[in-house]
Amino acid sequence: MRESKKRVAVLSPIAWRTPPRQYGAWETVASNITEGLVARGWDVTLFASRDSVTRAHLHAVVDKGYEEDAAVDPKVAEYLHISEAFEHAGEFDLIHSHYDFMALVFTRLIRTPVLTTIHGFSSPQIMPIYQKYRDGYFVSVSDSDRAAGLNYLATVYNGIDLSLYPFQDRCGEDLVFLGRIHPDKGVHLAIEVARLSGMRLIIAGIVQDEVYFREQIKPHLDDQNILYIGPVDVKGKNELFARAGALLHLNTIPERFGLVLVEANAAGVPVIAMDLGSCREVIKEGETGFLVDNVADAVRALRRIPEIDRRACRSRVQQRFSIDTMVEKYEQVYSTIFDVEARRRS
Amino acid sequence: MRESKKRVAVLSPIAWRTPPRQYGAWETVASNITEGLVARGWDVTLFASRDSVTRAHLHAVVDKGYEEDAAVDPKVAEYLHISEAFEHAGEFDLIHSHYDFMALVFTRLIRTPVLTTIHGFSSPQIMPIYQKYRDGYFVSVSDSDRAAGLNYLATVYNGIDLSLYPFQDRCGEDLVFLGRIHPDKGVHLAIEVARLSGMRLIIAGIVQDEVYFREQIKPHLDDQNILYIGPVDVKGKNELFARAGALLHLNTIPERFGLVLVEANAAGVPVIAMDLGSCREVIKEGETGFLVDNVADAVRALRRIPEIDRRACRSRVQQRFSIDTMVEKYEQVYSTIFDVEARRRS
Repeated sequence: MRESKKRVAVLSPIAWRTPPRQYGAWETVASNITEGLVARGWDVTLFASRDSVTRAHLHAVVDKGYEEDAAVDPKVAEYLHISEAFEHAGEFDLIHSHYDFMALVFTRLIRTPVLTTIHGFSSPQIMPIYQKYRDGYFVSVSDSDRAAGLNYLATVYNGIDLSLYPFQDRCGEDLVFLGRIHPDKGVHLAIEVARLSGMRLIIAGIVQDEVYFREQIKPHLDDQNILYIGPVDVKGKNELFARAGALLHLNTIPERFGLVLVEANAAGVPVIAMDLGSCREVIKEGETGFLVDNVADAVRALRRIPEIDRRACRSRVQQRFSIDTMVEKYEQVYSTIFDVEARRRS
Repeated sequence: MRESKKRVAVLSPIAWRTPPRQYGAWETVASNITEGLVARGWDVTLFASRDSVTRAHLHAVVDKGYEEDAAVDPKVAEYLHISEAFEHAGEFDLIHSHYDFMALVFTRLIRTPVLTTIHGFSSPQIMPIYQKYRDGYFVSVSDSDRAAGLNYLATVYNGIDLSLYPFQDRCGEDLVFLGRIHPDKGVHLAIEVARLSGMRLIIAGIVQDEVYFREQIKPHLDDQNILYIGPVDVKGKNELFARAGALLHLNTIPERFGLVLVEANAAGVPVIAMDLGSCREVIKEGETGFLVDNVADAVRALRRIPEIDRRACRSRVQQRFSIDTMVEKYEQVYSTIFDVEARRRS
């Protein structure tokens, strides 16, 4: 049996549809892996919400993402969704989980190996679960976002579907912020940069911290220089990239991966990112953007944007952050797991 | 092998210690079952918080009840606690779960049979999990608190440790409310009864609904006729029972069981309860209290309290709601499960 004919279950989160309509980075990556594996001939079953869109076999027990369905108790939906995948473990050679810490507690109750891609440690309080299950199989999405003591098999960078983000040759005139409206993402710093540089800033994304939005963002909105346009889908992102001279990503805590940085680069948009966490793995200083330490740095970096070759931005994404590159790496990880498991059983 | 030498795991909730220091009905019952089984010669392992007190083997992965430990994420603690029991399933002939719907999703991943005592359906939103696992083994705590379609083996009434609630011959002069301060428990109705009857009311229990307490209870407190004394432990309960002419339990939604009704009766205190849910299974009309439909009924019933023989209250608890009676019933249920399982395997 060729390895690519092994049966893989991909366990996606169910906060949103897979792939999400708008926001939902974990679901996006789970979708990209699923479709990438299918394209490469794997037999894949995607465990996700019923309204998900996939070329894999879809196995669903909840109708919609719980963020899109007020009638559902997220805890109930999660328990049903995760356990369903594990109840079907016998049908798979591998379960590839994207479900945070909750799926780990089921892993010792089945024989099928489980690989967990850790898309980020959502809180220090979840660490006791990772510590207990540290001997499992783990992948980090950046070298910087790792916890000590876990059995990491590799870092596999997230890959995007480049066809969704066509290259745009012409440099736009505005600054763009794209992401959750949350202090972690430094939207307030992006506003400062816009004011100091005299450039227009367009802010897009879901409001995750209402108080932050009300107190630190909304007062600056003026319909002219600082604009908030709500969450955007892929089409909306491309329209933003068309207007973007640069993407501002002044995160205040270490970034775990930063999918939007890659999406912007794919469209040819340079990125100015805070040098925290994974940003220096995703952005190549002086080539696809600039890494900065503060607002003043960011303003200075803006002047150097013309130095960036927009084609180089896209080409780096093609080489390092495509679905194919990601899935190839995952195939190597799967292969390692199959070898380990075969040795264990022999 | 005598059946009583079979190994039983009791999975207790971890909101509180088992048994709880004050409030915590589910943990109380899990404790009573555990200690009752041990007393009758069973080999019992109690899965509960580490500070729990038991004569069984204690297996703990969380230090304290999450309601008593702000550092803990309840979701993380629950996942760790429940999965731990299921990971050790092979060591037991039966797992007796008191853990609401969350434990059910693990049941198909192990071979050990799992009995779930449903202490109440905490929300309609949890029903999809019960429906999926309806073929499991279930016990209801009253005939009234049943959901259609579940595989119930029996109703087993909760039993209490009568030695904790000694009989008090003398009838007190006050009205007592004991329970969560929540609209479901009709504390506001108890206050109305106190005002209409001119009797003093002492209210004890944790505040579960802050707005309700602030708006509908607090304004009536006057340190003289309507008093709130906070949550009480067993000693505090007995002091209250000493002062009680009657316990008022004017629940506004169907009661699931009503442990406090039994505790009051054990001390000889008659109960005036709303005729909703399990109350008519727990209280015998005219013998251990009165069942009422509204406040006016309750005021009328107060006049008939002298008709109640306090010794009859205790004696009914001895017969129907003792730990021994409860554990004997559970032994019959266990026996049924062992028979079913043996047939399945043969």
